[in-house]
Amino acid sequence: MIAAVDAVDRLSSALGGGPAARLAASALIEADALGQPRFGIAMLGEWTPDLRPPQMGADMQALRWLDCSGRFAPLAVATATLDLAAAARRFGVAAVFLRGVRGFGRLAPFVRHLADAGLAGLAGAEGPPFVAAHGGTRPVIGTNPLAFAIGQGADRVVIDAATSSCTMADIREARADGSPLPEGIALDGQGRPTRVAAEVAALLPRGGQVGSLLGLVVELMAGVAGGGRGDPAGRGVFLVAFDPDAAGRETDWRSGLAGLRRDWTGGGGYWPRGGGLPPDAALDADFERRLDGYLAAMRGTEDR
Amino acid sequence: MIAAVDAVDRLSSALGGGPAARLAASALIEADALGQPRFGIAMLGEWTPDLRPPQMGADMQALRWLDCSGRFAPLAVATATLDLAAAARRFGVAAVFLRGVRGFGRLAPFVRHLADAGLAGLAGAEGPPFVAAHGGTRPVIGTNPLAFAIGQGADRVVIDAATSSCTMADIREARADGSPLPEGIALDGQGRPTRVAAEVAALLPRGGQVGSLLGLVVELMAGVAGGGRGDPAGRGVFLVAFDPDAAGRETDWRSGLAGLRRDWTGGGGYWPRGGGLPPDAALDADFERRLDGYLAAMRGTEDR
Repeated sequence: MIAAVDAVDRLSSALGGGPAARLAASALIEADALGQPRFGIAMLGEWTPDLRPPQMGADMQALRWLDCSGRFAPLAVATATLDLAAAARRFGVAAVFLRGVRGFGRLAPFVRHLADAGLAGLAGAEGPPFVAAHGGTRPVIGTNPLAFAIGQGADRVVIDAATSSCTMADIREARADGSPLPEGIALDGQGRPTRVAAEVAALLPRGGQVGSLLGLVVELMAGVAGGGRGDPAGRGVFLVAFDPDAAGRETDWRSGLAGLRRDWTGGGGYWPRGGGLPPDAALDADFERRLDGYLAAMRGTEDR
Repeated sequence: MIAAVDAVDRLSSALGGGPAARLAASALIEADALGQPRFGIAMLGEWTPDLRPPQMGADMQALRWLDCSGRFAPLAVATATLDLAAAARRFGVAAVFLRGVRGFGRLAPFVRHLADAGLAGLAGAEGPPFVAAHGGTRPVIGTNPLAFAIGQGADRVVIDAATSSCTMADIREARADGSPLPEGIALDGQGRPTRVAAEVAALLPRGGQVGSLLGLVVELMAGVAGGGRGDPAGRGVFLVAFDPDAAGRETDWRSGLAGLRRDWTGGGGYWPRGGGLPPDAALDADFERRLDGYLAAMRGTEDR
């Protein structure tokens, strides 16, 4: 057993310390604590001492493009998020487009960081083509999640939704199990619906046309405007942040958020919080051994 | 019969002329030409000579809030769109939040205008609560469309998607016809699924959870951050624009867009164009009579 806060401290130090290292470490350890190890410290398998965070330079920009190839992706996304927060505070609204991003985990921790900083954050990530267009027969875009966060404390909302019916990892698991897939989530190589995991050539969009169009918006932002599409070095990711307090007395967005939360949950809706760690979260001995292993490997390569 | 270009000229003049009047006029007439008269010149029923466009002031801002109550909504949204385009060109990225917006038609023409100006545009609109949360039983948000556009010419893409299963107008039509509703689009006053239009108390989100979360994102932007939620004077609307050319040689987004369009349509997907008028579009005599009536009424009130 290891307390999550201790695990974050140790990993944060190993990643060089400072706010970006802490955000990256928290994001990975949170995923393991939430039972999503695919998005957790498994990402450390790609770390090498050459993978330094991107240098943002002294100039602050409202709109920025960053090539993250050759960077450790969780730290690159965290560094870009912190820079974006500073830019949004200065300019009111700011955006950053990352490309060549290797596995970085979930978007939720990064937009949540923006919300905790008093901003609103919107983000999306594209990836290799696994998902067909609505009505289509071949994979053309990634599982393309979109995330949004605003607010603090109990009212904070953190949305992080994939635009595909499931992930390729789900398909691999079903294939390993030999279990049939639910209906309506995948197509075979001829573009026909299939429930056999071994036959899957394309995933379907989530919720039909609306998920397909949302996945297309993410692809247009992160893949086209951001230049990430088809880059063999990694994914395209975008983040947009703005400062709702810049409205001054024109709006009372905190009261508005509290009211919307009351209406939404009072009407039977689920108010998404995007994970996050309770202060007393702990991880099991197996996790601790894996973390020790990664940290030892990171020290070993540092000393090399 | 009247040519659409002539109708746009006449309405544009009646709205005071200039680029914002032309954009507003085109947006309304396009809706009639597309067979969506609810979003067309019917909006002119709300025009009075007191409803001047918002004064943007000489100062350009990257982030702006505008109270549009007491403004003719199509002209207010058009004026804000043109100001936003100038701000995005200057700052790289810009956003505007409108509140108190009465009926203004479809979002598509406004984000398409941004695309034609070489920018990328994202927009959303919230409205009166007709739609339940996924898993919920009572109406909590509007039909909350989201729109996005980028590109020019044949590659241009214009997405404009509602986040609800249908509109209240669809329900009213079914009620008038006495025809049963499709399954899975509405709830009655007890939160139970219904196919009887007269019993409808809430619409369901489009595509289940993904449409519900997207509707919530729009509400958080236009309703909460923008301050539009619950304002009896009208809806909340947001527009965000950025300049993809600011990447310089870092990306070739035009080639990327052309490639995505080829992949998307080649894989059987539909490339959304968001309406728009062919140069030779014409409207029928009934439309022409209605337009004449509105224009006469506008002149009458002007001369008063």
